[in-house]
Amino acid sequence: MNDPQPRHTIRQYEEELRGLRTSLLKMGGLVERQIADAVDSLVNRDSNEAREVIARDAEVNRMDVDIDAMCLRILALRAPAASDLRFITTGLKINYDLERIGDMAVNICERALELNEEPILKPYIDIPRMASIAESMVKDSLDAFVRGDCDLAQQVIERDDEVDQLNGQIFRELLTYMAEDPHTIGRATRILFISKYLERIADHATNIGEMVVFMVKGKTIRHMDKSKK
Amino acid sequence: MNDPQPRHTIRQYEEELRGLRTSLLKMGGLVERQIADAVDSLVNRDSNEAREVIARDAEVNRMDVDIDAMCLRILALRAPAASDLRFITTGLKINYDLERIGDMAVNICERALELNEEPILKPYIDIPRMASIAESMVKDSLDAFVRGDCDLAQQVIERDDEVDQLNGQIFRELLTYMAEDPHTIGRATRILFISKYLERIADHATNIGEMVVFMVKGKTIRHMDKSKK
Repeated sequence: MNDPQPRHTIRQYEEELRGLRTSLLKMGGLVERQIADAVDSLVNRDSNEAREVIARDAEVNRMDVDIDAMCLRILALRAPAASDLRFITTGLKINYDLERIGDMAVNICERALELNEEPILKPYIDIPRMASIAESMVKDSLDAFVRGDCDLAQQVIERDDEVDQLNGQIFRELLTYMAEDPHTIGRATRILFISKYLERIADHATNIGEMVVFMVKGKTIRHMDKSKK
Repeated sequence: MNDPQPRHTIRQYEEELRGLRTSLLKMGGLVERQIADAVDSLVNRDSNEAREVIARDAEVNRMDVDIDAMCLRILALRAPAASDLRFITTGLKINYDLERIGDMAVNICERALELNEEPILKPYIDIPRMASIAESMVKDSLDAFVRGDCDLAQQVIERDDEVDQLNGQIFRELLTYMAEDPHTIGRATRILFISKYLERIADHATNIGEMVVFMVKGKTIRHMDKSKK
């Protein structure tokens, strides 16, 4: 019976943090699905699916707005310190990345809609591979975030090289196609863009991984690789 | 002589907010310069300049880390409420956008270095035009932020269409080049990427503009346009 107010407040606060975690995972699940469906709509030449993904972006956007508001509310009402503060500001930025990943899925669909109108250039093999790596990077980066798991975050960061390599390979292959037959140029450049969108998705996941390491260890590794470039 | 501590603290707090504002403007000035120099290195075929821009990205990255730390420190020590809180969390995200814009300038330079090794495809006319619009959008979006100027933010958002149109125009023109002469494909795709990088810079500025409107009016316009797409 003693001091019920603070205990109640603490419980509520923990509830709010858990709510934020859950919402970010839900948002993550949604954008993972958006990536998978976007690439499916390309591979299976299913323009209806592409249009569904584009329509579903409204849901991603709603969640983005909600999560943003949630972070601001916790910051305003609870004035969290130290590790909670870092968790929430990281959440704010991760939300921003997830929303952009959602936009990339829409961009993939826009190109898929164009490509589906024309004869197929060649079976898509590397694009789905790249997509599945990028998708798993998004998933793992979020798992790393909610668990505060640095090792997993580090693995995400390292997998980015694989995506960059695939992107380079696709780039060179498509250049050859275009050079051999100018009729392929319109389609090849569109596939090139899709490859770039997937590379950017992997970049966003890498950013999330780097933020997780920063959040957990309090040290920034975000710019270490870049200086080596 | 009364109550010196709070007054001192308030002054210090205002100082910190002013410091954040100044740092973001400085970071903005630096990335504007990075964009301008990157495009110069392309137009004047000056590979040394391109390398300088790439090296200077370390400075952008340092500022990014500093501003992030500054935001976290103010949030932790001051637990700001309402409009200050919104100002700081917006600052966090703007910093994130500025750092990405810096990365785009580096990407432009990487393509410029490749393009400078080959004969010029055609004089660059639309690319510098696009760059100067994107650059002014970055500048105005930051001015809108520090002044809390919604009208200016709105102008930035509207100017994004201009950039998208130029990007579309460049895209179509380069496709024609490639179709007419396959020898141009390698160069044309690189220019295509540069055009895309500039489009993304304008997108980042548009994001900043939208966040400013949200910060000032407390309403989100971020996803209004997207649903119309």
